[in-house]
Amino acid sequence: MNLLLLEDADFVSAGRARLSGRRLKHLNEVHRAQAGDSLRVGLLGGQMGQGRLLTLDGEHAELEVELNQTPPSKLPLTLVLALPRPKMLKRVLQTVATMGVPRLVLVNSYRVEKSFWQTPFLEPEAIREQLILGLEQARDTVLPEVVIEKRFKPFVEDRLPALAAGTLGLVGHPGEFPPCPRAVTEPVTLAIGPEGGWIPYEVELLKQAAGLQPVQLGERILRVETAVPVLLARLF
Amino acid sequence: MNLLLLEDADFVSAGRARLSGRRLKHLNEVHRAQAGDSLRVGLLGGQMGQGRLLTLDGEHAELEVELNQTPPSKLPLTLVLALPRPKMLKRVLQTVATMGVPRLVLVNSYRVEKSFWQTPFLEPEAIREQLILGLEQARDTVLPEVVIEKRFKPFVEDRLPALAAGTLGLVGHPGEFPPCPRAVTEPVTLAIGPEGGWIPYEVELLKQAAGLQPVQLGERILRVETAVPVLLARLF
Repeated sequence: MNLLLLEDADFVSAGRARLSGRRLKHLNEVHRAQAGDSLRVGLLGGQMGQGRLLTLDGEHAELEVELNQTPPSKLPLTLVLALPRPKMLKRVLQTVATMGVPRLVLVNSYRVEKSFWQTPFLEPEAIREQLILGLEQARDTVLPEVVIEKRFKPFVEDRLPALAAGTLGLVGHPGEFPPCPRAVTEPVTLAIGPEGGWIPYEVELLKQAAGLQPVQLGERILRVETAVPVLLARLF
Repeated sequence: MNLLLLEDADFVSAGRARLSGRRLKHLNEVHRAQAGDSLRVGLLGGQMGQGRLLTLDGEHAELEVELNQTPPSKLPLTLVLALPRPKMLKRVLQTVATMGVPRLVLVNSYRVEKSFWQTPFLEPEAIREQLILGLEQARDTVLPEVVIEKRFKPFVEDRLPALAAGTLGLVGHPGEFPPCPRAVTEPVTLAIGPEGGWIPYEVELLKQAAGLQPVQLGERILRVETAVPVLLARLF
């Protein structure tokens, strides 16, 4: 936790916040914080700044908060990701928030196992929890938007074209394709497939319906949780 | 498992291998392989090629193997990594093998918790297991070399200068430093710190003793398991 994220409900008066639960536990056990300590804080969806610990015990922490700093900018990116398996989904959600992806679309694909759609990690509260961990890691306050699209074809045909309009549209896909471009300056729409990759029909539809061009990263097959940071680091 | 990795001991005669255990289980349960199926195979430390399943049951699988393809090339890199916490170590070892790092040095640092050095995941067999998972993922056959350096100062002063000689030496470190270079063509020695980062003394010693220059990745603080793929994807 490199940033203590506060929410409006944490404020007991202007400039004063009271915490309990997970964040208090972290302050006590990991930071071993004491009254008088100064911490980096941020308001979820708002500014960042400093918090001074007024009191801290096993029940509550109280902080005096000053917010005067804008959070880091986001990447100019819409990331379309075939739904990963639940354990990987948790880590990918954190990575997406940490790296500054502003919009994530989780989409079905032929090689996504049907059972993955049943995971409790797709509940809005569970998604939010992982995103917040990612923001706390990065020092950011702004939650990415997460959109869930359980049907591939209607999403790609009806909604992706508008999302991808005016952007560089790319599909990460191993094979005889151009290498993924580096350090681009325009906004990007990037689609990353499931373990085992998109099927040819999906690559073709992403191209025909939404103009996304396949790009590759070399011979090595990466896990989705590795492909995401690797593609973002190359692109931006 | 995108590649079935064989070892010399698996061969019952020239061109014929017999498997049991984890790999057999994976063939049965994940690949749902059947006699007659063709699979990508590789010989650990050797070539890759095709295997044709002759027989397969709950006890053994037998394959006819033809090896005629060289594995993908490695990155021109020595990666020096402050020992991560055990769970992260496992994933980082897989990532290192998957991405083609040929040599990894796990080193102590002020912010590495002492208890991390006690983990069973540092046993040679445990390290090898994670590296093999990483090679199977990437489709590579050549194990990275992993060196364990429990003392920072003697390593950096006595051994790192020779490792880093003739390479571009870099230390990943947040702060007012130049951005990490992109798409370099020379060999690199890259040092990545622990959670919380190197302490200033360590950055200074890496610079003074071994010529490693600090570089940064922007305002966002990345987890080590994200920083590794991000830095490698930028550099190569």
